[in-house]
Amino acid sequence: MAVNAPHLSPTLPVPGFRAGTASCGVKSPELKGKRQDVSLIVADVPCHAAGVFTQNRFRAACVKLGEATLHANAHNIRAIIANSGNANAGTGKLEKQWSEDMISSAAAAVGLDTDKILSASTGVIGTPFPIDRIRSGMDEAVKALNENHWETAADAIRTTDTFAKWSSKKAGDYTITGIAKGSGMIHPNMATMLGFIVTDAPLSAEQLQPMLQRVADRSFNCISVDGDSSTNDTLYLLSSGIGLGHPPMDDTSEFEQALTELCIELAQLIVRDGEGVSKFVTIEVTGAASKADARTVGRSIAVSPLVKTAFAGSDANWGRILSAIGNAGIEIDTDKISLKADNVIILESGNLHPEYRDGDGMAVFAEDEFSLHVDLGLGNESATVWTGDLTHEYITINAEYRT
Amino acid sequence: MAVNAPHLSPTLPVPGFRAGTASCGVKSPELKGKRQDVSLIVADVPCHAAGVFTQNRFRAACVKLGEATLHANAHNIRAIIANSGNANAGTGKLEKQWSEDMISSAAAAVGLDTDKILSASTGVIGTPFPIDRIRSGMDEAVKALNENHWETAADAIRTTDTFAKWSSKKAGDYTITGIAKGSGMIHPNMATMLGFIVTDAPLSAEQLQPMLQRVADRSFNCISVDGDSSTNDTLYLLSSGIGLGHPPMDDTSEFEQALTELCIELAQLIVRDGEGVSKFVTIEVTGAASKADARTVGRSIAVSPLVKTAFAGSDANWGRILSAIGNAGIEIDTDKISLKADNVIILESGNLHPEYRDGDGMAVFAEDEFSLHVDLGLGNESATVWTGDLTHEYITINAEYRT
Repeated sequence: MAVNAPHLSPTLPVPGFRAGTASCGVKSPELKGKRQDVSLIVADVPCHAAGVFTQNRFRAACVKLGEATLHANAHNIRAIIANSGNANAGTGKLEKQWSEDMISSAAAAVGLDTDKILSASTGVIGTPFPIDRIRSGMDEAVKALNENHWETAADAIRTTDTFAKWSSKKAGDYTITGIAKGSGMIHPNMATMLGFIVTDAPLSAEQLQPMLQRVADRSFNCISVDGDSSTNDTLYLLSSGIGLGHPPMDDTSEFEQALTELCIELAQLIVRDGEGVSKFVTIEVTGAASKADARTVGRSIAVSPLVKTAFAGSDANWGRILSAIGNAGIEIDTDKISLKADNVIILESGNLHPEYRDGDGMAVFAEDEFSLHVDLGLGNESATVWTGDLTHEYITINAEYRT
Repeated sequence: MAVNAPHLSPTLPVPGFRAGTASCGVKSPELKGKRQDVSLIVADVPCHAAGVFTQNRFRAACVKLGEATLHANAHNIRAIIANSGNANAGTGKLEKQWSEDMISSAAAAVGLDTDKILSASTGVIGTPFPIDRIRSGMDEAVKALNENHWETAADAIRTTDTFAKWSSKKAGDYTITGIAKGSGMIHPNMATMLGFIVTDAPLSAEQLQPMLQRVADRSFNCISVDGDSSTNDTLYLLSSGIGLGHPPMDDTSEFEQALTELCIELAQLIVRDGEGVSKFVTIEVTGAASKADARTVGRSIAVSPLVKTAFAGSDANWGRILSAIGNAGIEIDTDKISLKADNVIILESGNLHPEYRDGDGMAVFAEDEFSLHVDLGLGNESATVWTGDLTHEYITINAEYRT
């Protein structure tokens, strides 16, 4: 029950990149041939690359390997191999071997060295990884490689997502195309879920890495579905531009702006498709002493089960929002806090607004999209966080996920 | 749908203390005469007292006033006045006045100075406080004062609690009787919900305060229902012993042991009666570098929506438990972690135990009470945390609480 899932415009091809998929029955052999579950992205030239990863201390082997590969080879990346249906996480010693085997089989299929290939896995944690089934589908993925197959690639990395998520942007003459997945276990911390972005804009790895971190902080790190960060969150950005012979970009501001818009779009799609989510809520926090404080307050509201069930119940129970602000753990002055829901002023400088009527608040909370605006009255920094509600559907999905 | 709510033994009277209640229609005037919602505890002699309060930065006026009263007068406390049905929180300037008015009206009714009276409020946040209705019931509460009315007093502080919670213990010749309430917004941080404990053991305020903090850390601070800390959490401990003329206690170890048992009992009752809770889960964390680390890991597991929905679904989805450990934010070594559910070994030193079968785990998770044991393999410290599951019933209760 996604909230106002928009009709997505077709993806734009990006010079230097092709994508292909395969149906391997990763989650169970019976699914082979029924749904695509392996995505392969291949670059025709060496790419500069950047990555942002989960801060969960239980990092899956693919995350650790990807980080090491980027560390050694960020100027010469050629492919990403990814699967849904199994996170290959929490299985101890075997995990690393399986992750290496997946990269090896992709390397063999596309004729590249393993140290030029990044990988990502998503799905159930703690279940043995079906490496043989994945290996047997690799040629199928290579045969499917095509510059227009981004939408299929987005489809193949879905787990509980109800729709595939992609976006393309232009930055001057260059193109950015990104795909992402995510629906539950969404509370990214530094990175998120899976997101793969490619561009032909000629940026070096040294330019890409800090930019991707900044952009992730303003997009994927500003959403929360259920407050749980996954073991496998990974966001990769590959640029073919330098490999294609374009002169390196000096002024990257237009590109960063386009990349930010693309990432915010993908991040919002993830919230709209959040497990059981029936409302899409934008939380704007202003008047904070620092950007980090603003985001902390926004996320504290966004993860509170009591706030999220109030959203679900269309109940303008703003006391729970105050309580969540108080739980954020940052210094606040309760006499300076103001709160609005859309244009309805609820609290002004710590006091209930004399004209506030519960019915006005309830009318806003009854909408399927609305915004909360919290002003902390302490400084000039701000942040925007996007979240959904906590519904019966979330319980149903997650009490029955494996069965 | 409380989980195995035990039959509670009758409370023991405590020399020096009486309790009484009134029905004031705090939540709505129609409830007047239908349910008790104001509790008054009066001591016949000056009491030494201690208090532990919420760490939520949005602290209700009664919390701030109580802290100030204890600071000024911890050797001479005579009464606690408390109400359910309205938290008197989040209402700005009026809040403090209403809180002072409740104390004044109790002071007038029992003939004491206001600076000897502590207060507490619980219920909906952000709704105007019906001080007139409360004031009008004060004489009723005074008339009801009786050394055996603890169970009624426990009943009158309930909000969404499905049963009243109390416990009595003996420590040598002395008696400890405590009452508590709490069902949702339960993730105490330093203190919890409402808890009022009285004893005739002759301990000074200087002995009581650090002891209460230690005991809260091992009891109320080790439970979680939904990860939300309330604005009004308050735990008070009053001792009449010195006022009754007993010689001050030197060796307080037996008393602290009894107090700890009583608080753990009350804390567990709160989890058993947690909103929508259908399972009672004990999480033991051992092998931690510090007690704080152990509790942080236990609480991270206890608050994860994905872990809690797995409990609800009787799904031994232990990958989610590992992910929650990884999200705790403390240093871990994933190769050293072991995990058991009751006596079923799942993970040993980071690897799936060769004899683990999913059916064995599922059998444990199907029980309505079970324990998880996490060994971090890093040190010798440990902690135990108690929690419940996250069910459809929780959503129903909290999406409809005010309506």
